[in-house]
Amino acid sequence: MQDLAAYTNALENEINQIDFPQHPSNLYDPLRYFMALGGKRMRPILTLLGTELFGNSKESAIHAAVAIEVFHNFSLIHDDIMDEAPLRRNKETVHTKWNRNIAILSGDVLLVKAYQLLAKQNNEHLPALLHLFNQTAIEVCEGQQMDMDFETRKDVSIEDYVEMIRLKTSVLLGCALEIGAIIANVSESNRRHIYDFGQHIGIAFQIQDDILDLYADPEKFGKQVGGDVIANKKTLLNLKAFELADTEQKEILHQLSGTNDLNFKVEKTRELYDQLGARTACEKIMQAHYDLAMTALNELEVDAAAKEPLIGLADFLMMREV
Amino acid sequence: MQDLAAYTNALENEINQIDFPQHPSNLYDPLRYFMALGGKRMRPILTLLGTELFGNSKESAIHAAVAIEVFHNFSLIHDDIMDEAPLRRNKETVHTKWNRNIAILSGDVLLVKAYQLLAKQNNEHLPALLHLFNQTAIEVCEGQQMDMDFETRKDVSIEDYVEMIRLKTSVLLGCALEIGAIIANVSESNRRHIYDFGQHIGIAFQIQDDILDLYADPEKFGKQVGGDVIANKKTLLNLKAFELADTEQKEILHQLSGTNDLNFKVEKTRELYDQLGARTACEKIMQAHYDLAMTALNELEVDAAAKEPLIGLADFLMMREV
Repeated sequence: MQDLAAYTNALENEINQIDFPQHPSNLYDPLRYFMALGGKRMRPILTLLGTELFGNSKESAIHAAVAIEVFHNFSLIHDDIMDEAPLRRNKETVHTKWNRNIAILSGDVLLVKAYQLLAKQNNEHLPALLHLFNQTAIEVCEGQQMDMDFETRKDVSIEDYVEMIRLKTSVLLGCALEIGAIIANVSESNRRHIYDFGQHIGIAFQIQDDILDLYADPEKFGKQVGGDVIANKKTLLNLKAFELADTEQKEILHQLSGTNDLNFKVEKTRELYDQLGARTACEKIMQAHYDLAMTALNELEVDAAAKEPLIGLADFLMMREV
Repeated sequence: MQDLAAYTNALENEINQIDFPQHPSNLYDPLRYFMALGGKRMRPILTLLGTELFGNSKESAIHAAVAIEVFHNFSLIHDDIMDEAPLRRNKETVHTKWNRNIAILSGDVLLVKAYQLLAKQNNEHLPALLHLFNQTAIEVCEGQQMDMDFETRKDVSIEDYVEMIRLKTSVLLGCALEIGAIIANVSESNRRHIYDFGQHIGIAFQIQDDILDLYADPEKFGKQVGGDVIANKKTLLNLKAFELADTEQKEILHQLSGTNDLNFKVEKTRELYDQLGARTACEKIMQAHYDLAMTALNELEVDAAAKEPLIGLADFLMMREV
């Protein structure tokens, strides 16, 4: 693995070259704006790592990598409308800065742009790339729909929840890596292992997100600790707590969800979660997916040295405190 | 050309086989519902005709034909949100029957489904099919954005308007035909001619739509005659009338646009348009595009007999009274 900057520089350079015409400006200004908001570019980096892992140059997969990033941004623009989110990366969302119709339509164009970028890869890879990309795009939408459905459902199980985060966020990590592998012409089994690695790391990462929201160090955490509790959001912690709680404890959790004193709400909820062992139970599920990711990585038929960047990445993702 | 029923039967059969899973039902029920609303299936028929024209069987292009229809339905679902349209084909639109978020997300999935269908064609055609399809999809979005922009713009020219309808509706007809030609492995020049035929027939068809809205026989017309005038919609007739009007006549048109007596509004507007020669001027533009379509058809290097279905279709489209 080269320095991270080598990857992000190559990606930003390619992102800057995406053809967004001047007219109609209401369609393309939002896309120029949104793509420039930045972000970690984690998904396209996975594509570059996924092809380098098998001895390919990162340049060979650069269009497909940017296609993944463009797809991710399309899904953010549309998700932000659905979630009525005013901000993304501390800047106004597209539907806030322009309007909802413009956000719908510019999102649509961005999805097509992802296909244009994907189609810039060699023709020989196109059928396999399209097949995986289409399947993943559909799953991401399914995950978003499940997430919306959960808001009003009262019977969400742990399995439902993990399946939701798998679809909504994790399959795209598996896809990003496997796209790199496809471009490196690797075997079906290597493709499956690298996909599984990405998918399980993605699930573990999301579970950690849920845990950090309540247990992060307020000094280091960029946003309010306990935001999910305050918003009464269904998270793995919350579902696990309800699963472990007896009737009386469930009643307390219900009462807490209606409390206006937010500090009290967060503190008492954390106290009860700890008492129930919700955090430990969630960490166990997270660890199980981390282990599955490592098993998949072990089964990859490449030199151990080549796997190090991915192990490093996985550990970096899992050891974060923010 | 076989009986029209042979085409629609083949298409409906293929449409019924599209894989819409049972879950999440809020994502896929709207798609089952919307795809079953029917419609003339004009665009996919063009794809089948476009491939038969060059001696191919219609079966060879059936997946791509349905991809075009699926794309068209995606754009209708999203346009209906943007236009806040309560009805489509006399049934509730998706955002009315379910909600806006579901309409955004199920539309997104439908766009991906179009790519899945396109990818079912032979791999050898995939790069050319994707290139044309992506370009067209982007143009359709650009046309929709221009249409939305026109609502508040005061300086829309005839050229702007024709460019808007070209992008919003006509390029998809050209694309539908050319996709059939690509699958028939024809020359670049034949591909261009068939595309141009579709595009210009599409423009002529849309202009006729604008004219019929005010001049159709109320006995035969399925909806209220003068609907565009009542809604103060910018149409070619309206733009042409303003172009031809003197200051005094412009003032009358402005006054009419604020009139509450709708019969009076429609009658007086029609009277003034006639006086200005707006209808004749629009028919001239329509005829010019019809002629361009016929020129393109003439230049196609296939037997005259093979062209007859397309001439028949063009005449059918242009002679309609509804």
